[in-house]
Amino acid sequence: MNANMSVNISANMDDYRIASEPYYEESGEECALFEAAFAQKLPVLLKGPTGCGKTRFVEHMAWKLKRPLVTVVCNDDTSAADLTGRWLLDEKGTTWQDGPLTRAARTGAICYLDELVEARADTAVVIHPLTDTRRLLPLDKHNELLRAHPDFLLVVSYNPADRGDHKQLKTSTRQRFCALAFDYPDTERETAIVVRESGIDPEMAARLVALGVRTRRLQGHGLDEGASTRMLVHAGALIGQGVAPADACRMAIAVPLSDDPEITAALLSTVDASF
Amino acid sequence: MNANMSVNISANMDDYRIASEPYYEESGEECALFEAAFAQKLPVLLKGPTGCGKTRFVEHMAWKLKRPLVTVVCNDDTSAADLTGRWLLDEKGTTWQDGPLTRAARTGAICYLDELVEARADTAVVIHPLTDTRRLLPLDKHNELLRAHPDFLLVVSYNPADRGDHKQLKTSTRQRFCALAFDYPDTERETAIVVRESGIDPEMAARLVALGVRTRRLQGHGLDEGASTRMLVHAGALIGQGVAPADACRMAIAVPLSDDPEITAALLSTVDASF
Amino acid sequence: MNANMSVNISANMDDYRIASEPYYEESGEECALFEAAFAQKLPVLLKGPTGCGKTRFVEHMAWKLKRPLVTVVCNDDTSAADLTGRWLLDEKGTTWQDGPLTRAARTGAICYLDELVEARADTAVVIHPLTDTRRLLPLDKHNELLRAHPDFLLVVSYNPADRGDHKQLKTSTRQRFCALAFDYPDTERETAIVVRESGIDPEMAARLVALGVRTRRLQGHGLDEGASTRMLVHAGALIGQGVAPADACRMAIAVPLSDDPEITAALLSTVDASF
Amino acid sequence: MNANMSVNISANMDDYRIASEPYYEESGEECALFEAAFAQKLPVLLKGPTGCGKTRFVEHMAWKLKRPLVTVVCNDDTSAADLTGRWLLDEKGTTWQDGPLTRAARTGAICYLDELVEARADTAVVIHPLTDTRRLLPLDKHNELLRAHPDFLLVVSYNPADRGDHKQLKTSTRQRFCALAFDYPDTERETAIVVRESGIDPEMAARLVALGVRTRRLQGHGLDEGASTRMLVHAGALIGQGVAPADACRMAIAVPLSDDPEITAALLSTVDASF
Amino acid sequence: MNANMSVNISANMDDYRIASEPYYEESGEECALFEAAFAQKLPVLLKGPTGCGKTRFVEHMAWKLKRPLVTVVCNDDTSAADLTGRWLLDEKGTTWQDGPLTRAARTGAICYLDELVEARADTAVVIHPLTDTRRLLPLDKHNELLRAHPDFLLVVSYNPADRGDHKQLKTSTRQRFCALAFDYPDTERETAIVVRESGIDPEMAARLVALGVRTRRLQGHGLDEGASTRMLVHAGALIGQGVAPADACRMAIAVPLSDDPEITAALLSTVDASF
Amino acid sequence: MNANMSVNISANMDDYRIASEPYYEESGEECALFEAAFAQKLPVLLKGPTGCGKTRFVEHMAWKLKRPLVTVVCNDDTSAADLTGRWLLDEKGTTWQDGPLTRAARTGAICYLDELVEARADTAVVIHPLTDTRRLLPLDKHNELLRAHPDFLLVVSYNPADRGDHKQLKTSTRQRFCALAFDYPDTERETAIVVRESGIDPEMAARLVALGVRTRRLQGHGLDEGASTRMLVHAGALIGQGVAPADACRMAIAVPLSDDPEITAALLSTVDASF
Repeated sequence: MNANMSVNISANMDDYRIASEPYYEESGEECALFEAAFAQKLPVLLKGPTGCGKTRFVEHMAWKLKRPLVTVVCNDDTSAADLTGRWLLDEKGTTWQDGPLTRAARTGAICYLDELVEARADTAVVIHPLTDTRRLLPLDKHNELLRAHPDFLLVVSYNPADRGDHKQLKTSTRQRFCALAFDYPDTERETAIVVRESGIDPEMAARLVALGVRTRRLQGHGLDEGASTRMLVHAGALIGQGVAPADACRMAIAVPLSDDPEITAALLSTVDASF
Repeated sequence: MNANMSVNISANMDDYRIASEPYYEESGEECALFEAAFAQKLPVLLKGPTGCGKTRFVEHMAWKLKRPLVTVVCNDDTSAADLTGRWLLDEKGTTWQDGPLTRAARTGAICYLDELVEARADTAVVIHPLTDTRRLLPLDKHNELLRAHPDFLLVVSYNPADRGDHKQLKTSTRQRFCALAFDYPDTERETAIVVRESGIDPEMAARLVALGVRTRRLQGHGLDEGASTRMLVHAGALIGQGVAPADACRMAIAVPLSDDPEITAALLSTVDASF
Repeated sequence: MNANMSVNISANMDDYRIASEPYYEESGEECALFEAAFAQKLPVLLKGPTGCGKTRFVEHMAWKLKRPLVTVVCNDDTSAADLTGRWLLDEKGTTWQDGPLTRAARTGAICYLDELVEARADTAVVIHPLTDTRRLLPLDKHNELLRAHPDFLLVVSYNPADRGDHKQLKTSTRQRFCALAFDYPDTERETAIVVRESGIDPEMAARLVALGVRTRRLQGHGLDEGASTRMLVHAGALIGQGVAPADACRMAIAVPLSDDPEITAALLSTVDASF
Repeated sequence: MNANMSVNISANMDDYRIASEPYYEESGEECALFEAAFAQKLPVLLKGPTGCGKTRFVEHMAWKLKRPLVTVVCNDDTSAADLTGRWLLDEKGTTWQDGPLTRAARTGAICYLDELVEARADTAVVIHPLTDTRRLLPLDKHNELLRAHPDFLLVVSYNPADRGDHKQLKTSTRQRFCALAFDYPDTERETAIVVRESGIDPEMAARLVALGVRTRRLQGHGLDEGASTRMLVHAGALIGQGVAPADACRMAIAVPLSDDPEITAALLSTVDASF
Repeated sequence: MNANMSVNISANMDDYRIASEPYYEESGEECALFEAAFAQKLPVLLKGPTGCGKTRFVEHMAWKLKRPLVTVVCNDDTSAADLTGRWLLDEKGTTWQDGPLTRAARTGAICYLDELVEARADTAVVIHPLTDTRRLLPLDKHNELLRAHPDFLLVVSYNPADRGDHKQLKTSTRQRFCALAFDYPDTERETAIVVRESGIDPEMAARLVALGVRTRRLQGHGLDEGASTRMLVHAGALIGQGVAPADACRMAIAVPLSDDPEITAALLSTVDASF
Repeated sequence: MNANMSVNISANMDDYRIASEPYYEESGEECALFEAAFAQKLPVLLKGPTGCGKTRFVEHMAWKLKRPLVTVVCNDDTSAADLTGRWLLDEKGTTWQDGPLTRAARTGAICYLDELVEARADTAVVIHPLTDTRRLLPLDKHNELLRAHPDFLLVVSYNPADRGDHKQLKTSTRQRFCALAFDYPDTERETAIVVRESGIDPEMAARLVALGVRTRRLQGHGLDEGASTRMLVHAGALIGQGVAPADACRMAIAVPLSDDPEITAALLSTVDASF
């Protein structure tokens, strides 16, 4: 790195710390396994359906491990430069600006690349040298070979059931990660989550969870995925605002889930049968 | 955020307030349901055909809830940067300019993304962290992690019947929204709207509405959609200018609806049979 | 809008006024219908084949209504920014430059988007908020929400028979317009046009028109469209320069119409049979 | 146009004048027909095979009509801005630079767009307002509505047999032009051209022309086009350098014409049989 | 090169030196063959599956040959400019910045282009003049014709089994390289590697290697590749952290390897049968 | 050209001169034919397989004709601007930088466009006006019409057997060139080349050439091309370093030639049978 190319790290990493413990109901051993991977600085991949709690889990672990959390939601415009950084023009010419991945690697944060599979398959290769024992991030445009901070950890996630397009992680990328598979919580824990997050009473929460389970049986029968825990929380929140339960479930679950008239009719009658 | 990267919020948000009550005929409980979602800051999705009043409804609710309304009509060039912001060059180098979504999140406006489904499917992921309990907008290029203003609400809309291209909202995006389904108003309310908006007498308005209903029966038979309420208002407005009703309906309804000679002939004879 | 972002409207709109009455032969009620739409500020769509007089009609109406006319010939590179405006660099940094649509909306001109269907289907959505009762043009990049001048009118055109590519206006765009369908003028009026525009005598003009009508019968039989009125005028102009009628028709009609050897042979023998 | 946006027309148009009479053998009435079109300022389209003399003809006419000639060889990167102009940065910010089409329209040159069909089909629409009675070139980016100089003429060319890709001129573009069809010269004129251009004797030139005619019979039988007049001139030039006629024809005709082994063998034996 | 276009080579090449001997278990003669190629400066191509040690081998050889190592992980956005360099704006205008390939060629480093086949097939041609006896890198944008440093060596790698997309090196590129084929190490050496890299005891390492071999038998039966040596090391590292062996193998091997439910079930039962 | 737009030709063309005679074994009359084409300034096209000596031939001829040689290896990102030049920003605004083609045309060098067919088919049209009697290069962006230096010669090459993608030179481009077809040298000359280039003894060289000839028989049977002369030289160079002949041929010939397991096995057993 050239002396006259100072790096701006004044981005206050404290902004990226999780202030208070995020609520998270553990399903199994995932917290201990994550901690073991963190201890060895093995990169972690999280798989699972929409809205089942992957993001919340990462926030919980970042809080527990006391690391700042830098999150990037990937999309198919996500380029290597979006992750690593770029030159900005200022009055003296150009200033290098670290991208979120570089910032995390430099300062020892957890970098969470949500929906990594959306990024162009080959853009993902930029993380390769960071995910083996070298733990290097070559910033060619900055003439810099960044060695990751000892506390840096890379976490990525994606939803294997998301068939919007047939993107897959390349084998050479996948094999660099330890992986944890997530699924919807079991009925009891999901009820507890809905009570906690929406403030409604356990009985109503249990009826919402039962409805959620019924919608998940439609998965593969015209529905990509059933109602997520998040949707049940939304329905609960509307009920908490005084909306009738059936109206709340129509608005929070049945109408958003599908545009197909037949599927929607099936969902609506499931809602009607539930309340 | 760096101290020397001040954010320009001098864009007067009062420009974005709705000055007077927009006329809106309620179809059901949609106003109360929207208010409940707003109270819980749950993002709202509006589905329905062209010209049935979705945009008017959002304006009406923004006026009622006394929030500025920032509207973005999405198109397939709509990039994440168009929503979040970008750096502009000025005499001191570069100045960050909030995009409309960022401006709304920062100031507590309602942000209405019309025809969201037109934006590149994956560009839509930029709204993900804003639509769960985090209510965060990561502005990586500005080194900023924006926490949404407590009054900020995200509203999106699209037309499920628009088959111009086969775009769909991703499941992981859909499940973040509560949804309201819109349709054409019933005959009585539609007649009232045409009278109110075009200034013609109720009898003529009723004949226009009857014609509109007939064109909607052609939907799926060579016509993507029948005449919208807006088209009936256009016909009424031309009649109010002294144009003969059949000429007005040809110009406002039959000719714009289709380029197919057979469908156009069917529409023209429907017009002729109506007056 | 920021105080330091002044808008350059020194582009003299008088350049866009039609100085003298453009010659136009009316086919039906189109002038009166256009005037009614203008009175109500309803956007107008013109459909019809190549060279049948749509552009001339708009010029005629702009002259009649005493409005400046801003014309944009759309192509598939036409982006939203080409219509709305962009930032230009100058010695003080950047200056906003209104695009043609913005200029017209700001100053109360008629904005004529010729061959709108060529522009990317979704780029067309930029005109949506201008074409309903809001009459707004959101200039997000300029932090401005432009309200259209009361005299502003949007006019668009396209040729439904142009099958170069299978582009179509989206339903949600079409339904925002009143529409007028154009076709070739009838024989008598077309002869008058050829006489007037090329200066040849009525008898020769009538023979040219008869030839034009014959070429139009080949439409669909290997020819996308027959000879336009403009081509007949070209042939007349060459004859007026002393070119032999058959040579003039070969050069102005038969050779330009097709590259297909068989079709060209048919056209040439039609020319030979005409003189 | 803004006062502070001066146009640089210091590009010396004399550079674009044809200094001495270009050699051209007329095939028919093409010179007189071109002059008639120039007198009426009707845009001209030239069709014909590779290397048959279209470019030379335009140079000849530019010399005869004493107009500067601005030539653009179009390719599929040719954008509207490449034809019309763009802003260049300089020490005072930005300076507008006319593109070749604008320069020609402003100064009254002949603008020759060679292989127009290569340019993106819809980019071609930028020439539409220049090719009807308006003779306008809207330079939206320069806030200017340029009226063409009275002496400006647009000439375009393409090769209908070039099947490299299946591009075609749009009907709405074609119908704006008068057209002249070119073909290889007849044997006598082609021999005269080869003598004149390569300096070899008439007998050898006649043998080259006879060989060229034989290769043209292979057109459609694995060969897109036979040998052009230009190739015969090349062979003659090599012979003039002392190369054996068969070697010269192999190098100038047989090897360049095809990569297909069978076709090449046929061409080589045709060469061998000729000398 | 212009005098006023100085090249910035202050990027300290010592950053690119390998500080300590990288652990590498030789499989055959690959080290001696690489040294012979280096002595002759013949470019080297490494083929082999994911995670079998190609990168480690290059690091080992760079350490042994005492050359700095410049690594570029190619992706399908990797352009010629990313390898060769580009102009950066600074207060004096523009400064040329060598890309990693140029830097290596100028200073005599080993340049390692990992996954070259991912780069656009034709971008690879930029290395052609560097890989024959000319050893030239034409930097057209810098007006420079760089002659490679005598110690410069080009090494590229790719995985022939990676069927993510059907890219291949062009023949004209392949033929410029000497090549070494890599595969997984044999059981004994792989066990030694797992012991050394993860710190677990040889017996457990042998069980991991046996599991790895079993997964590789699934290759082609729904699995693109079996577990790499790297994955076995990951499992060992988790076991070293106190994770139960079956849990460690699920997290490090079975879950990352596949998203297919059937394959995953097969992998999980293989894991269960192993511990 | 504007007075204030000076052209930077300080790029020392002596860098582009060939310092000492490049070794080249003539196959036939190609040197004399090239000289004849140079005398007439007819552009030359070289066809032939990978690594058969086309580039060396051009270097040889540039040395013989005492012209600087500017080489561009084309790829599918090669744009017209890469060949002709572009504006660079400096402290005074922008400076024009000639591209390699322009530099060669301005100073009278030989410009060698290697693998021209890789460049976008239509980008190739930029060379058209340079390759007929006009010998002009229109630099529209520089407002300049460059007349080529009398000594300028254009040479292009491509490999007709390279089926990586199905690109072809357009007919209108091909017909502008004289062409020479290259192939592998005959056994005797190839042996001499291997001796001379790798320094091994003639007997070993003859065995390498015999192996090369055997691999070329596999062409079309799963192999795009057999071993080039260059590969034989590589094998010889490794043998000269003390590598066993079979190892050298595996590394220099068999492994690089194919990724297909069957073809590779055939190649390896051919190697084994040879030593």
